[in-house]
Amino acid sequence: LPDQSFVTLATNDSYVKGALVLGSSLQRYRTTRKLTALITPQVSDLMRRVLEKVFDEVILVNVLDSGDSAHLALMKRPELGVTLTKLHCWELTQFSKCVFMDADTMVLSNIDELFEREELSAAPDPGWPDCFNSGVFVYRPSIETYSQLLQFATEKGSFDGADQGLLNTFFSSWATTDMSKHLPFIYNLSSTSVYSYLPAFKAFGASTKVVHFLGSTKPWNYTYDSRTKSIKGNMDDPKIVHPEFLNMWWDTYIADVLPLLEQHGIVKEITTGVNMLSGLVYTLAFSCGFCREAEVTEAVSHVSVSPVLPTESSEKRKERWEQGQADYMGVDSFDNIKKKLDTYLQ
Amino acid sequence: LPDQSFVTLATNDSYVKGALVLGSSLQRYRTTRKLTALITPQVSDLMRRVLEKVFDEVILVNVLDSGDSAHLALMKRPELGVTLTKLHCWELTQFSKCVFMDADTMVLSNIDELFEREELSAAPDPGWPDCFNSGVFVYRPSIETYSQLLQFATEKGSFDGADQGLLNTFFSSWATTDMSKHLPFIYNLSSTSVYSYLPAFKAFGASTKVVHFLGSTKPWNYTYDSRTKSIKGNMDDPKIVHPEFLNMWWDTYIADVLPLLEQHGIVKEITTGVNMLSGLVYTLAFSCGFCREAEVTEAVSHVSVSPVLPTESSEKRKERWEQGQADYMGVDSFDNIKKKLDTYLQ
Repeated sequence: LPDQSFVTLATNDSYVKGALVLGSSLQRYRTTRKLTALITPQVSDLMRRVLEKVFDEVILVNVLDSGDSAHLALMKRPELGVTLTKLHCWELTQFSKCVFMDADTMVLSNIDELFEREELSAAPDPGWPDCFNSGVFVYRPSIETYSQLLQFATEKGSFDGADQGLLNTFFSSWATTDMSKHLPFIYNLSSTSVYSYLPAFKAFGASTKVVHFLGSTKPWNYTYDSRTKSIKGNMDDPKIVHPEFLNMWWDTYIADVLPLLEQHGIVKEITTGVNMLSGLVYTLAFSCGFCREAEVTEAVSHVSVSPVLPTESSEKRKERWEQGQADYMGVDSFDNIKKKLDTYLQ
Repeated sequence: LPDQSFVTLATNDSYVKGALVLGSSLQRYRTTRKLTALITPQVSDLMRRVLEKVFDEVILVNVLDSGDSAHLALMKRPELGVTLTKLHCWELTQFSKCVFMDADTMVLSNIDELFEREELSAAPDPGWPDCFNSGVFVYRPSIETYSQLLQFATEKGSFDGADQGLLNTFFSSWATTDMSKHLPFIYNLSSTSVYSYLPAFKAFGASTKVVHFLGSTKPWNYTYDSRTKSIKGNMDDPKIVHPEFLNMWWDTYIADVLPLLEQHGIVKEITTGVNMLSGLVYTLAFSCGFCREAEVTEAVSHVSVSPVLPTESSEKRKERWEQGQADYMGVDSFDNIKKKLDTYLQ
């Protein structure tokens, strides 16, 4: 069905990794629909080219340059930057129907049946279950709806400062009107929900179709040990909810995404290098005996496989470092990592 | 409407306090429906008499003595004791329709409109929003349904070992069939949800109609300072979610329930005595400087206003003490409290 598409959004190179895993997982389960990625100017050209290997369409959205009502909305509500970018998905009128999925989701089975649903279908948000979670939703691209959403955003803003608040206020009948627009929770299982009602997860979790890595630590922020096929670090960390889901994300990353990155010369020997480096740092830190595992894990979690980027200003490099995109062979080499580690020591 | 009733369940004297606050809050907002309390044999005669002042009907349910299919079910599934007691609410066929409310809920407005809903209407559970929370639900008493529920419980048990798992499996179409059976979340706002999606609480929380004190620490486990009209203890304690709701519970307790307890000679000077005692313990503990506030708060939280009970076996007294029902002027006097406190010290 060429007039229907899954749509996601990546606002930087880290989220591109998420988008690539999401796209690969959709392909792995043989979706018959198109794959579309919206990206912002923060995404590097190299990563954009990798996205084009997985997604049928990669579309640059620059709200600042759009010169239209989205730009005007942004001037009035600068805090809604990413939200307004996400709203652009309603402009994809080459498609009759779409399923939007956040870049921090992945599918565990074919979910093409979602295209039988109507706008706006979404699953409840566990934080406030009369709201839907806007990480997965079915919608119909329409310039008219897009304009209404922009006007609404400009006039009323968003109660949570993001797209979820805006969309819930705009599609406010979701909670009360049409049950067919309530997607089952297994289509947007927040990873943080696993332990909030564990018996329910044990009873129904095996049917999970979409997992959503909510929270500030994303799968790409963890360190993966490809020998043991598991996330490194303290599994008792309450932030590491249900490591099985995290390991599934990394399995897909290693199997389907990493080869693409290597083809584009983004990672090569570096993968091995970083793994060795992480191991070394662990060993050193523990044998010294003067730092706690949690701190090392936190420090090492900043070390992950990332593109080698051209030389750039120290400010920009700091920004990338803080996003977990270090230049491991260059300025962010072992010496510098060690310096950074020192700041974590007791 | 004499053939419709709110129904609750109290399984010991502590939960009777909750039931009394719930019943008083329903009266305060002028419900036109009857109030019914189911109690188990663990409830003392004195507290039962107080319940009869607030509730139109107080009905003793003894699953062990029932000699019917409930007893048989209990023999096969002893872990479902309280669940099977709760199911007895379907036997109240003197009513055409009922709203069941857990004893750890209270209403913040008139909610008689719930009787316009059909069986089984309930609000989503934030832990797994495709399940309803069984703390508030609309149902139709029916011996046939009761028998089916018992048979179901005996054959399949409950995925969470309690009534919520059982009822969700029995009324399994709730999540997918009829939106009118989805009560808005404000009819069963779990106190733990306030901070899980704070912007939503700020946007919609003012309309809260029923608050549900989920979690192991119940309102009656806290210590209330009637001078400052607030809960004692460290408000940064993550367990003390939204103290405003807790204070509302205590306001109702002090204004409407305590006078009833005093009329029945259950508390008199004791209230003052216990408050003084708590203050003294606090002062002593802190001036000694050898214990942390959290521990004292935890210890003192066991001290609350409770009926003076007749002399009883030390085993039974231990049980009551652990349920927070101490005999303050007698065997559980200051000396004994001090001994207990000692066990909390570092």
